[in-house]
Amino acid sequence: MSSYMGEGIPEYGKDLINRFMRFFRPRNVAVVGASREPGRVGYAVVKNLIDGGYTGKIYPINPRATEILGLKCYPDVRQVPDPEVDAALIAVPAAIVPDVIPSLGEKNVPVAVVVSSGFAEAGNPELQQKLVETARKYGVRIIGPNTYGIYSPWYNLSLSFTIPYTYKGGLAIVCQSGGVGMAAFGYARWKRVGISINVGLGNMADIDHADLLWYFYADENTKAIAFHMESIKDGKKFIETAKFVSKKKPIVVLKAGRTHYGEKAAKSHTAALTASDAVINAAFKKAGVIRVYALDELFDIGRSLAMLPPPKGENVLIVTMAGGLGVLLCDAAADNNLHLMEAPQDLVDEFKKFVPPFGAFGNPMDITGSCTPDMVERAVRLAIMHPKVDAVIIGHWHTIITTPMQFAKAVVDAVNEARAKGIEKPIVVSMSGDIPETLQAVEYIEEHANVPTFFSQPERAVKALGALYYWARYAGILKK
Amino acid sequence: MSSYMGEGIPEYGKDLINRFMRFFRPRNVAVVGASREPGRVGYAVVKNLIDGGYTGKIYPINPRATEILGLKCYPDVRQVPDPEVDAALIAVPAAIVPDVIPSLGEKNVPVAVVVSSGFAEAGNPELQQKLVETARKYGVRIIGPNTYGIYSPWYNLSLSFTIPYTYKGGLAIVCQSGGVGMAAFGYARWKRVGISINVGLGNMADIDHADLLWYFYADENTKAIAFHMESIKDGKKFIETAKFVSKKKPIVVLKAGRTHYGEKAAKSHTAALTASDAVINAAFKKAGVIRVYALDELFDIGRSLAMLPPPKGENVLIVTMAGGLGVLLCDAAADNNLHLMEAPQDLVDEFKKFVPPFGAFGNPMDITGSCTPDMVERAVRLAIMHPKVDAVIIGHWHTIITTPMQFAKAVVDAVNEARAKGIEKPIVVSMSGDIPETLQAVEYIEEHANVPTFFSQPERAVKALGALYYWARYAGILKK
Repeated sequence: MSSYMGEGIPEYGKDLINRFMRFFRPRNVAVVGASREPGRVGYAVVKNLIDGGYTGKIYPINPRATEILGLKCYPDVRQVPDPEVDAALIAVPAAIVPDVIPSLGEKNVPVAVVVSSGFAEAGNPELQQKLVETARKYGVRIIGPNTYGIYSPWYNLSLSFTIPYTYKGGLAIVCQSGGVGMAAFGYARWKRVGISINVGLGNMADIDHADLLWYFYADENTKAIAFHMESIKDGKKFIETAKFVSKKKPIVVLKAGRTHYGEKAAKSHTAALTASDAVINAAFKKAGVIRVYALDELFDIGRSLAMLPPPKGENVLIVTMAGGLGVLLCDAAADNNLHLMEAPQDLVDEFKKFVPPFGAFGNPMDITGSCTPDMVERAVRLAIMHPKVDAVIIGHWHTIITTPMQFAKAVVDAVNEARAKGIEKPIVVSMSGDIPETLQAVEYIEEHANVPTFFSQPERAVKALGALYYWARYAGILKK
Repeated sequence: MSSYMGEGIPEYGKDLINRFMRFFRPRNVAVVGASREPGRVGYAVVKNLIDGGYTGKIYPINPRATEILGLKCYPDVRQVPDPEVDAALIAVPAAIVPDVIPSLGEKNVPVAVVVSSGFAEAGNPELQQKLVETARKYGVRIIGPNTYGIYSPWYNLSLSFTIPYTYKGGLAIVCQSGGVGMAAFGYARWKRVGISINVGLGNMADIDHADLLWYFYADENTKAIAFHMESIKDGKKFIETAKFVSKKKPIVVLKAGRTHYGEKAAKSHTAALTASDAVINAAFKKAGVIRVYALDELFDIGRSLAMLPPPKGENVLIVTMAGGLGVLLCDAAADNNLHLMEAPQDLVDEFKKFVPPFGAFGNPMDITGSCTPDMVERAVRLAIMHPKVDAVIIGHWHTIITTPMQFAKAVVDAVNEARAKGIEKPIVVSMSGDIPETLQAVEYIEEHANVPTFFSQPERAVKALGALYYWARYAGILKK
């Protein structure tokens, strides 16, 4: 048994992990329907593999070409020199996609992603059924059809007809819609989100969210999982799998089609069967799934969960430079079931040594807008280092005494000093102030301290920490 | 009676309107405690008045100076040459602030903003009480103390010790906290929010949210009102006033200190008395107040309300380029009590003429990611122009066929063509895709069509429209 297998994984889960370990980390990739013509999907895929920096072997498959983008082309997957092919993408017209499958079976392809459209979404459920049956017969699992593809940044794999994404990180994103997938990429580039895996499920004829969970469970690069979900093919399977996986890694889900309007639209969009929202809600709760209700929340909470270390206790402390923002942070803490501890007396005494008397010495600790960069660093260091404090929320506003970048550097220095001493606690930061200085400072903190930092969104920062605690309680890291 | 007075305004409301009409549009401004030293509050205020482009007379008041920043300085407000002074800012030490008031009374100053701190927030409620009593005696109303000041961009008035804000628009923002006020400015600059008035209430010893509502009611530049509120001094007064004003203009409120944690923090921050949140919620409902629960929502919903025209009916149509985003928009429509109309048959027929058959021809109208810029423009034009459609939600995602800027131009052209024909309907847009192209397109639509456009936030776009409808139903523009 491989080292990435844990106890309690069912046989089919192990099979999926083994398949995906090859597919997402492939030694070689076959592109069936590769094309020499720029503008064609089969051209874009080969180009993206190259541009994305993939270092394994790329085998373009096209019986009417000998070379594509400088790569030797093969008429059929059976002809490629390697005995096995780890990943395949199919971009041929829908009608002949099932005919490709036997060749993949011969080369022991574990998973093939079908980008071709013209299946159930276009009124051809029979063709889709035929594809799934053929794949099953030849031992190939299918992602898609009708998808943009998949990304595995740690392996420089952009197996898709859209553009490469190369920012490596801990968040696995799965989207059941191409538009949402593209939205995810745009948002990810905007917020510099490190991705472990991105999968477009398309019509989800075979591989679904639950199947991917097994790989995310085993994948050491994946720290958190974000799902956009329009339908659940097998409710019991999803809940059982999520239950198991979320004991190890947090799963956050945006369930689309949860209202009467949305459900109607989802049915027309993916012909998806949907369950009542109350049933889904109860099931998610049982499985420890963190539920969100907006696309930007899915991304924000997901990326924060991928950045934050697990908490060791329930004691949360707020350190704020502004009383008014402190109040908003407190409201959000209550909304998100966080426990604002009573500030320890020795910590209060330490703060009183340098914070002016018009500050507040409780929770929140209001160090006021009059504090200098040194005072900010001292405050953050004291909060993080205190043995009774388990997590810290830091509230900033733009003053003339401490520039946003001075604040950012103070936070980064304090956090990294604590880390050097082996002290690693969940920290979230809310910053507000003028642009571009404040946005630059947000970026600085995220890049140099890997601490989720939010611009003008105090409530979102706290929500991210709340999601982490929700998960930690479920996973048994904390007592409920 | 002035033309800006409506029927039903109580005498004290008329008095406030008359005072604020002078104060926010002053012919002259006195800065009591003006300073020659850069870095001092009294210097920054004079500099901001100049830098902000204020064209009225500026009277620095300082008995120990003859000139400040090239302006003649006076020892006392009584000595300024004008018979009346329209606006005053006081920046002298707290203890002597009450002593300044009689001089303002003599010059018939309607409202003075006190930026000095050292009052109730610093444990001196008696001094604050003395200030209020003195002001009352001399017929001066007070904003503050302990505030950053006020802004009136249409009159190029930045009466504050922070930096000027000059982007004119329809949103009046009031913040009961300096940190939140600065957050508002940062966010406003980031999203290019046109402001009519910004007020920092500080300790709110005298002028409160309700008092300002009268001016916002009368001010032709104000289209919508956004309040950050930690406490309500006089619940009955606020509700009665809001009830009256929100029949004319939408009011959106972020009530801070609404949870047990937040309330505790608010008490320590502003010594504010707070009511139970259920009571506040019921009162807000009665007064037509739109309630939000996050700082960025306050800004986003506020600015959208200031941009959107009132709806004429309940029929909302979604036009989307992606099915998956359409589902999210539908969910949000249901959440926000919007009525997704049945798509009129003649409109469906028109769409079928150019949208590929794998689109969806209902509500949402899914024009698919395959559409060209011309098709986008045609779709948007058809939707806006149709007589049965009262409001339109447009969902975009980044494709290779239509660039974000081509999409933006198509929307702007269609909207402006409709406007040229006298057709003005509420429209909101959600865009998702790569940066910087998509962000540039968002900015283009807002600048050239004044249509609220959201990046990666489909739910937020719909929420803005939902807030408009909530208000319109309350205001009697629409039947409930």
